[in-house]
Amino acid sequence: MIAIDWGGSSLRAYRLDGDGAILDARRSGDGALACGGRFGEVLGALIAGWDDALVVMAGMVGARGGWIEVPYVDGPADARALAAGMLRLDPGDAPGLAGRSLWCVPGMADRTTPASDVMRGEETQIAGLLDALGPGAHTICLPGTHSKWVRVDEGAIVRISTAMTGELYGLLRAHSILGRGMPEGEPALDLAAFDAGIACSDDPAGGLLHDLFGVRTAMLFERFPPSALPSYLSGLLVGHELRAALAGLPAPVHLLGSEALVERYAHALQSRGIAVQRHPEALAAAGMYRLAKVRGLL
Amino acid sequence: MIAIDWGGSSLRAYRLDGDGAILDARRSGDGALACGGRFGEVLGALIAGWDDALVVMAGMVGARGGWIEVPYVDGPADARALAAGMLRLDPGDAPGLAGRSLWCVPGMADRTTPASDVMRGEETQIAGLLDALGPGAHTICLPGTHSKWVRVDEGAIVRISTAMTGELYGLLRAHSILGRGMPEGEPALDLAAFDAGIACSDDPAGGLLHDLFGVRTAMLFERFPPSALPSYLSGLLVGHELRAALAGLPAPVHLLGSEALVERYAHALQSRGIAVQRHPEALAAAGMYRLAKVRGLL
Repeated sequence: MIAIDWGGSSLRAYRLDGDGAILDARRSGDGALACGGRFGEVLGALIAGWDDALVVMAGMVGARGGWIEVPYVDGPADARALAAGMLRLDPGDAPGLAGRSLWCVPGMADRTTPASDVMRGEETQIAGLLDALGPGAHTICLPGTHSKWVRVDEGAIVRISTAMTGELYGLLRAHSILGRGMPEGEPALDLAAFDAGIACSDDPAGGLLHDLFGVRTAMLFERFPPSALPSYLSGLLVGHELRAALAGLPAPVHLLGSEALVERYAHALQSRGIAVQRHPEALAAAGMYRLAKVRGLL
Repeated sequence: MIAIDWGGSSLRAYRLDGDGAILDARRSGDGALACGGRFGEVLGALIAGWDDALVVMAGMVGARGGWIEVPYVDGPADARALAAGMLRLDPGDAPGLAGRSLWCVPGMADRTTPASDVMRGEETQIAGLLDALGPGAHTICLPGTHSKWVRVDEGAIVRISTAMTGELYGLLRAHSILGRGMPEGEPALDLAAFDAGIACSDDPAGGLLHDLFGVRTAMLFERFPPSALPSYLSGLLVGHELRAALAGLPAPVHLLGSEALVERYAHALQSRGIAVQRHPEALAAAGMYRLAKVRGLL
């Protein structure tokens, strides 16, 4: 089968063998929210030469404004519930897709809080991890633009909590008074400044809106060199994310994501005495293979 | 005397009589950070025809990058300490300033926390309020782009805490995923949505980074009409600001600022059972009059 991890700004294709092992992989910059609606054309070109009939997709391609809107499955949801929410779509006459069977994985909603929470794409990565986690309660964190904190209980996803950490970091660097005194680009992580940010976030008398202004006073009073200021800001944001997200969740924290971000979060968690377990980023393909199996497509 | 309230983006001039009463007022859009360094020229033109010799200025005009950098006075600071930090500056040969005596009020720093905190301009407004407050401990809030929470004890400013509430609101509306689903411009306050945001911020299991994503899910699940989403976002931010700022501060909260913001904060505070007292926005002139008196310039 072919597994398509189609996020808002990225697109990855995996060719899998009968046991779900990755035979080949390709990528493109045609994200689902950036390809101008040319979904069939983009997909047909990307998987040209791979003659497998079954194509399973996950991510923003299934969101409102994507190729097909696949409704959110409400939690608690295990692999069976997610697979049951998959929708088949008709590629029309897009070149290279004739004779293929196209499916898209749903996103997931947690409606146990007044504001609710959602994810789309991450549920598929988690589906690829569920067997390895085994029974009992587990905490999963997928750090990023919108970090996802997920609680799994007996093989089902039961809670979702999103933190806008990465988006806020980017906004503050690009558009706020805090960004003006910082160097261009992304300097290497300054661990002392990152740790100082985390320590500041631990003070219960603070509050993120106040602590952020401390980046400004750190500039004024030259508490750190300019190249360390992004790390201090990152430590503040990650620290506040962790303080809120960890309440009541069991350790260890299973970290899924890019290596640099996973290392940053692992350091922040371990500095609070919380054990972590790192997982490879390419779990999406394993998740789609698993869901296709459960749905009976393989 | 003439009192000049010269902020980063605004400039106001007041002509005062011998008792500090306002005889006349003028304003200009030439903020201290936006006038391209033409300080003398701008000021001379603004006060043309007012023949008073003494001119006292406060605000960002005295910041690094302003007309003259007046060092921060460390807290605790009463009117005497602020007046002692005033610096006289030479207007050079700027037209309309010959024969005048120009002074600038210092900003204030609170170095009782590792990150420190500062204000510049607000200390002058507070100086205009100190006599009215009288002895004892008082809490003052100046809501805005950078909200200032100030504790006064026996006539001296002892603590400063800044929250970047207004700046973050603007950033999120203009540049984030949350702003995309909101109407252009600033719709009227939707009190139910504002209150829902405040209620959400009260949940200790939340955290601002998480609660902000709730504005996104509120859009997805159409919890509010689009015109109410800015009010929900505002309620979240103000609620988080209050929760952190109020810890350990005595009531009532003295509110200084624009009428619309003061009303919004008064509502949020009163809905938590905290008494408020409103003050006029033009306290800066009274503060400069008071500091000039204490300094012996009048």
